[in-house]
Amino acid sequence: MNPIVAEFIGTMILILLGNGVVANVLLKDTKGNNSGWIVITTGWALAVFAGVIIAGPYSGAHLNPAVTLGLAIAGKFAWAQVPGFILAQLLGAMTGAFLVYMMYKDHFRVTKVPGLEAACFYTSPAIKNPRLNILSEVLGTFVLILAVFYITGGEFGEAKTPIGLGSIGAIPVAFIVWAIGLSLGGTTGYAINPVRDLGPRITHTLLPLKNKNKADWQYAWVPIVGPMVGSAIAAALYLLLSS
Amino acid sequence: MNPIVAEFIGTMILILLGNGVVANVLLKDTKGNNSGWIVITTGWALAVFAGVIIAGPYSGAHLNPAVTLGLAIAGKFAWAQVPGFILAQLLGAMTGAFLVYMMYKDHFRVTKVPGLEAACFYTSPAIKNPRLNILSEVLGTFVLILAVFYITGGEFGEAKTPIGLGSIGAIPVAFIVWAIGLSLGGTTGYAINPVRDLGPRITHTLLPLKNKNKADWQYAWVPIVGPMVGSAIAAALYLLLSS
Amino acid sequence: MNPIVAEFIGTMILILLGNGVVANVLLKDTKGNNSGWIVITTGWALAVFAGVIIAGPYSGAHLNPAVTLGLAIAGKFAWAQVPGFILAQLLGAMTGAFLVYMMYKDHFRVTKVPGLEAACFYTSPAIKNPRLNILSEVLGTFVLILAVFYITGGEFGEAKTPIGLGSIGAIPVAFIVWAIGLSLGGTTGYAINPVRDLGPRITHTLLPLKNKNKADWQYAWVPIVGPMVGSAIAAALYLLLSS
Amino acid sequence: MNPIVAEFIGTMILILLGNGVVANVLLKDTKGNNSGWIVITTGWALAVFAGVIIAGPYSGAHLNPAVTLGLAIAGKFAWAQVPGFILAQLLGAMTGAFLVYMMYKDHFRVTKVPGLEAACFYTSPAIKNPRLNILSEVLGTFVLILAVFYITGGEFGEAKTPIGLGSIGAIPVAFIVWAIGLSLGGTTGYAINPVRDLGPRITHTLLPLKNKNKADWQYAWVPIVGPMVGSAIAAALYLLLSS
Repeated sequence: MNPIVAEFIGTMILILLGNGVVANVLLKDTKGNNSGWIVITTGWALAVFAGVIIAGPYSGAHLNPAVTLGLAIAGKFAWAQVPGFILAQLLGAMTGAFLVYMMYKDHFRVTKVPGLEAACFYTSPAIKNPRLNILSEVLGTFVLILAVFYITGGEFGEAKTPIGLGSIGAIPVAFIVWAIGLSLGGTTGYAINPVRDLGPRITHTLLPLKNKNKADWQYAWVPIVGPMVGSAIAAALYLLLSS
Repeated sequence: MNPIVAEFIGTMILILLGNGVVANVLLKDTKGNNSGWIVITTGWALAVFAGVIIAGPYSGAHLNPAVTLGLAIAGKFAWAQVPGFILAQLLGAMTGAFLVYMMYKDHFRVTKVPGLEAACFYTSPAIKNPRLNILSEVLGTFVLILAVFYITGGEFGEAKTPIGLGSIGAIPVAFIVWAIGLSLGGTTGYAINPVRDLGPRITHTLLPLKNKNKADWQYAWVPIVGPMVGSAIAAALYLLLSS
Repeated sequence: MNPIVAEFIGTMILILLGNGVVANVLLKDTKGNNSGWIVITTGWALAVFAGVIIAGPYSGAHLNPAVTLGLAIAGKFAWAQVPGFILAQLLGAMTGAFLVYMMYKDHFRVTKVPGLEAACFYTSPAIKNPRLNILSEVLGTFVLILAVFYITGGEFGEAKTPIGLGSIGAIPVAFIVWAIGLSLGGTTGYAINPVRDLGPRITHTLLPLKNKNKADWQYAWVPIVGPMVGSAIAAALYLLLSS
Repeated sequence: MNPIVAEFIGTMILILLGNGVVANVLLKDTKGNNSGWIVITTGWALAVFAGVIIAGPYSGAHLNPAVTLGLAIAGKFAWAQVPGFILAQLLGAMTGAFLVYMMYKDHFRVTKVPGLEAACFYTSPAIKNPRLNILSEVLGTFVLILAVFYITGGEFGEAKTPIGLGSIGAIPVAFIVWAIGLSLGGTTGYAINPVRDLGPRITHTLLPLKNKNKADWQYAWVPIVGPMVGSAIAAALYLLLSS
């Protein structure tokens, strides 16, 4: 599989499953309605697991511009490939969000509480405060990227895979995402990935949803900048500690 | 163990544990009564785990006609063996559902809410809409089969096992089923396996349950056709990406 | 470590953690009060994990007379060692239950609902019906022992360990116990191990608990006979399928 | 990475994620508010997983003076290095608690229930009774340290790592912590690590929190002495059983 295609498909699966679990928990009359934070965080962790299994051997399964950026900063990934990877991730995320919408369409229709439908696309802070919201996204992504460096020994990039031991090797990354969701997701809903938020936000804007909240574009920069800063700090720390 | 026997026993265990967790959560006065979506999805994931551990080394642990079909399409499994495998899976599923009925018999007796008893056998959509219900089953099975191809490297079939690393190798498949349940199970209850629905539906029809809902045979084609289509798409995509 | 000592310590840890999670969920004013079936089943699964990790390399970590019996029937364990193993398991279970009592003593004191205190020691059926209760214990133990045979390839006994891959190898057994609890534990509370029930029942009888229910000795034979029968069936099936 | 730096960073990550999950569950208006014991215990287990992944290859990932002490008693770790390790752990724990405070600052502000804010820093017993509270901490830490000895074969110390199989090797330790939380955490909230309690307690005392409860320094000795005693007993038993 071409690495760019792998990033597209992997990120599509990631968002299909990740936004899917949010839809299952928040939308009316679903079988998982109101099943709580353990369901949401386990679902996102396993969404990453699925994406990594599928894309891992072909692109290294970044699935996240913050990962791509962190690797490039650390000298483990060619800067020339960064734009292509990020574009594939963004398109994959948009597509995944569209599939969730199609699949849960009837449940979007019957859900009348304002804001719930938007929450199935993009993140919103529990208490809006850009300075602290950024901090949340920085800390969450910092833990993600630092852990990924030590899980892979820093030895993954374009063509290399973070997976040893077959698909078993994807478990540690999933567990780290699980940890971040459980512990650090309480404030902003842990985007920790710029396209996880931006892709579905674009899809939401484009879709002819009835009664939809206007997508909150004012907040959109936080889950882009926060993860990028968190990743850069983790990469710098990794380089410092490895030197 | 003969591969046909392995498929029978593996699918029986799968449905005993899978339908068992539904009975435990839905039926009255059980110890797991009303324990929620996390229990149901974890139970189904581990039901697959148990079935794969037992049947894996002998039949490759399809346990699902959608898996058998996907492998045959991809040229990894002999078409001549497909009917035998599917029949064994169907009989295993029927038997598993019967064991759940026997074991939870007293709880079936005391449960008076219409529909709950049927839900311990076969799936029903949260909102009936054949077009979207099919889409749900297609998407869920697509993720399952695509992931199974990449977990196994496409190298499993009749006599080969998806399990490397001993039983540890069955964990990724279980995690994928967990993911699908948490994220994509909210609409139709994720059959993602034709015999998981049809087998218990037949058992339900044959059983002399008191006050039973007439088994909803009108919906029965959805969890057969949806998984088959999803599997075919995944197999075709896998072939395309591997060529 | 001597195998007999390993069985004693491993079973003590198993019951300390297993009965401990029941105490945490059921007793008044604990931090895990009323936290549900997912907590109980995860706790028991990990209790087995802990016991297997510690005893595995020394005794094969039976921790359960049904395992010892199944292995003896299958010709994988010397009959002469069976009594010593079972006695060590029983004493370990009694000790583990005593430790739970000591640790949660203040919470036993403040818990006034009749029956809750007994449930922290031994199992009771949700609906009493010896014929079906036996069936539940037979089915649960059948799944456990059959899975254990295929996890270990039948190659564990006194001095051999079911653990390959270091402690990672104990995960499949824990997952099987998790599965059984989630799916088949709803009727009788899944003893699936004669000493898990008998040991704490003896401890309960001996302890000077205030307001204690008289230990229900009438039911005590079910979680002894059921697991033994289930294990014998699994061992016979394993031999049949392997021949 | 220098082992002392590894202990500092690993313990910081441990407390950032561990105290973070408590904040997410207890504080007002968070996304994980009131999500229960399964979230708290899973969060702590994965917090240990994250810390071990990052620090493991460099310091052996003690992250806990009780581990350091147990290893020193067992002759697996040089006594001369004990003070440096413990100091790094304490400073890491203080820093982690400070990061949780910064990140959840707005939620600390809106939480008015007395005691909840303190519970995001340090442990308190459900029922105060020093003799039994000590016993809880002794038992929990005893299980932790004994399991760690058998997971690692006693072969880890300063420069050696408990991790085989890459990051996969950190799963058993995380599962043991999960087990202890679920089963033995119900009484005192399972510090099982002196700096997990003392570090955040110091941070809490230093922080200018509004309406804060005076940190309960009277109880502070219990989660220091209990874990140390439990660790010493486990180390002694390990030596006895290994001789």
